[in-house]
Amino acid sequence: MTTPLRLHYAPDNASLIVRLALEELGLPYETILVDRSQQAQRAPEYLRLNPNGTIPVLETPDGALFETAAILLWLSDQAARLAPAPGSAERGRFLTWLFWCSNTLHVDLRQYFYPEKYIGPDPSHHAQLRQMLRQRLHDHLRMVDAALAVTPALTGKDQPTLLDLYLPCLLRWTKLYAETAQTPWFELSAYPALSEVCRRAEARNSTKAAQIAEGLGPTPFTAPTFAIPPEGSAT
Amino acid sequence: MTTPLRLHYAPDNASLIVRLALEELGLPYETILVDRSQQAQRAPEYLRLNPNGTIPVLETPDGALFETAAILLWLSDQAARLAPAPGSAERGRFLTWLFWCSNTLHVDLRQYFYPEKYIGPDPSHHAQLRQMLRQRLHDHLRMVDAALAVTPALTGKDQPTLLDLYLPCLLRWTKLYAETAQTPWFELSAYPALSEVCRRAEARNSTKAAQIAEGLGPTPFTAPTFAIPPEGSAT
Repeated sequence: MTTPLRLHYAPDNASLIVRLALEELGLPYETILVDRSQQAQRAPEYLRLNPNGTIPVLETPDGALFETAAILLWLSDQAARLAPAPGSAERGRFLTWLFWCSNTLHVDLRQYFYPEKYIGPDPSHHAQLRQMLRQRLHDHLRMVDAALAVTPALTGKDQPTLLDLYLPCLLRWTKLYAETAQTPWFELSAYPALSEVCRRAEARNSTKAAQIAEGLGPTPFTAPTFAIPPEGSAT
Repeated sequence: MTTPLRLHYAPDNASLIVRLALEELGLPYETILVDRSQQAQRAPEYLRLNPNGTIPVLETPDGALFETAAILLWLSDQAARLAPAPGSAERGRFLTWLFWCSNTLHVDLRQYFYPEKYIGPDPSHHAQLRQMLRQRLHDHLRMVDAALAVTPALTGKDQPTLLDLYLPCLLRWTKLYAETAQTPWFELSAYPALSEVCRRAEARNSTKAAQIAEGLGPTPFTAPTFAIPPEGSAT
């Protein structure tokens, strides 16, 4: 790729997952801060790139791409890394869980963080939605933890996949943003395979680069703390 | 592929999209009815194939696959049809909208159909969630309609893509199950590019085969009526 890739990002947003993939693949890229404090993701010039107003966008020689998992899969296919190869016996199960991360686990987390987009402004409705979502999230995490345990090709120590990047971020946000001191419910240690994925992630250089770029702190996945980013804001 | 593909389906459920892909690709397959009237999708033997209990599952030589869009992409990649080729300039935008269909449009429809899974049993909560979802769905449809208009490679008359199969089904279900006589809000004609996709879909042999197999009636996408399937039930 000769034209540089440009990642429109906000610290500790879904763009983090794409940053990890870019780092893992060693691709040159520029970042452009989406200033959430100014609602820059709703500005006309951003909506021209992504009419959904979601973060991230990756500008590429093939146009502006959005949808985190789509960008991840596109990058992986270009580099022929971070996923079982097309045509291999593991590809189908891998795609199954990649889509599941995108349309089940990630979507439920988004609802947890932004209940007003789904149920309107009433705080009692938010509480009701979140109570249901906590149970759903717990069920989801048990399910993917079991799948990782029986299907080694989904993730990997020496050959990490996109799920090795995607899942630790979703778990980080679950701990940081879907739990309060008043309503503890999430313990990473309850999910052994996911715990291992998080531990391994913290040993990788891609994570170290993201820690510096986005101020993620020393143990961003196994014991996350709120980001203190050098620019912009996470929320 | 030597082992036959086995599609676990219920009439007029998400499995319909996978059936259309199998027909379009001319692949031999068997169908196995998931009897929703008996909650067969929650039976232990089904949950062993798909712990989510969602329909469809496609049993393949590479194991049981689930997540509609993952199955679609896997089939497309195996056959090298129904999508811009990997490495082509159109691939990234195509993946963007495929994931978007899966995690935005399809997920919001699921919430509309099963609000109790998200907000619990209170009917007033269902009404509130659905009111918000109608506006979200309208925004989604405007967005994808605009994208199809400016990006011809996303769909195609002579070379249909997975979106030519996926979108008409989602629109059918929007009309049939997300609208009532009391709350009309959805008019396919408001979305010219989507209307064209639906018209074209009705001319294809894959649709004709699905109409017979699942009792979809004469105009399943442009003017849908409730399915009268030869076996099983849609809800």
